[in-house]
Amino acid sequence: MGRFISLEGGEGVGKSTQIAALAEALRARGVDVLVTREPGGSEGAEAIRRLLLEGDAGRWGPRAEALLFAAARSDHLEKTILPALADGKWVLSDRFIDSSRAYQAGASGLADADILTLHRIGSAGRLPDRTLLLTLPEAVAAERAAARDRGGADRIGGRDAIYHARVAQAFAHHADEDPHRFRVVDASGIADHVTIRLLDALADLLP
Amino acid sequence: MGRFISLEGGEGVGKSTQIAALAEALRARGVDVLVTREPGGSEGAEAIRRLLLEGDAGRWGPRAEALLFAAARSDHLEKTILPALADGKWVLSDRFIDSSRAYQAGASGLADADILTLHRIGSAGRLPDRTLLLTLPEAVAAERAAARDRGGADRIGGRDAIYHARVAQAFAHHADEDPHRFRVVDASGIADHVTIRLLDALADLLP
Repeated sequence: MGRFISLEGGEGVGKSTQIAALAEALRARGVDVLVTREPGGSEGAEAIRRLLLEGDAGRWGPRAEALLFAAARSDHLEKTILPALADGKWVLSDRFIDSSRAYQAGASGLADADILTLHRIGSAGRLPDRTLLLTLPEAVAAERAAARDRGGADRIGGRDAIYHARVAQAFAHHADEDPHRFRVVDASGIADHVTIRLLDALADLLP
Repeated sequence: MGRFISLEGGEGVGKSTQIAALAEALRARGVDVLVTREPGGSEGAEAIRRLLLEGDAGRWGPRAEALLFAAARSDHLEKTILPALADGKWVLSDRFIDSSRAYQAGASGLADADILTLHRIGSAGRLPDRTLLLTLPEAVAAERAAARDRGGADRIGGRDAIYHARVAQAFAHHADEDPHRFRVVDASGIADHVTIRLLDALADLLP
């Protein structure tokens, strides 16, 4: 039976490393895994991703940006996620709806209700079976994000510290509101230990 | 004082020719005119236009397509239309929200209420001051559209006759519902005569 898992968290929290390690660990347990990401994860959504992440910080207003994320998510769900779930795969997505709620509503000032409405219209309101929220103490996250920025940040990663603090706050708030779907996982310390925590947070779903 | 005018109608009804002629006629009356179009009309919206009109007919599902149109409209309004109106210009737009209602809801099966909700979230629900709906008898429209198709139709122009009949029906229905904003203009006959009818339909707004 397919399962839909999203990994969420702010910049520099280690999602990319952990999603690869988690996929590996699940495969070792005999699970057929598809790793994907947002924005992107399908041909159309990757084209939208390029529009979203390239160009000036002011290229898109917050409303157009929220609509583009919702369009990309709709395509990603229809073309990639739902077919994989129907094939019995576990889908691990680096970001999903909760990132739009944290970034476009929490930090960019749109109403959370509007972000959820876009998700209902675009993706029939589909939620992951489990959402793993990776968290770091604010100072550690800021340091890691700064190290990435020196390598050249994209339109969203390059925003200021207050923006990223608002994102972290919104993630924490949504996790509190839906403890059945969310698991908050400490992303500090040795990477292998973080992966073990993530696996533990999926234990009830494993065959 | 700026005025926002949209021209609407199905494929082959002569909107491009008429919008140029109408702009000319308004300029001759001392009106400062900006001609624009949807999808497009701003740098970001033109990039979205390319995603919407290129590629296979099945490239986007109806939900992703509706979100992309709404994103393009949000950018077009913010970056092009509102600044021009603030400058006192008359904005003539080849298509606006009523095309999304006719094409994505009327013909592609989304709920009209959802299209209006996307417009509220993306563009604060902004409507034109006047919408000129160009109409042709169905047989004439089909013949003109077929002639264009032989020249190579895009993703939407290339859809079948039933689709285009549904579009025409939806336009007519929305015009009936809002007679204050809409004027239905017969697009058959000599082009200059059509332009005169369009000018007459703006007479109450002219200085």
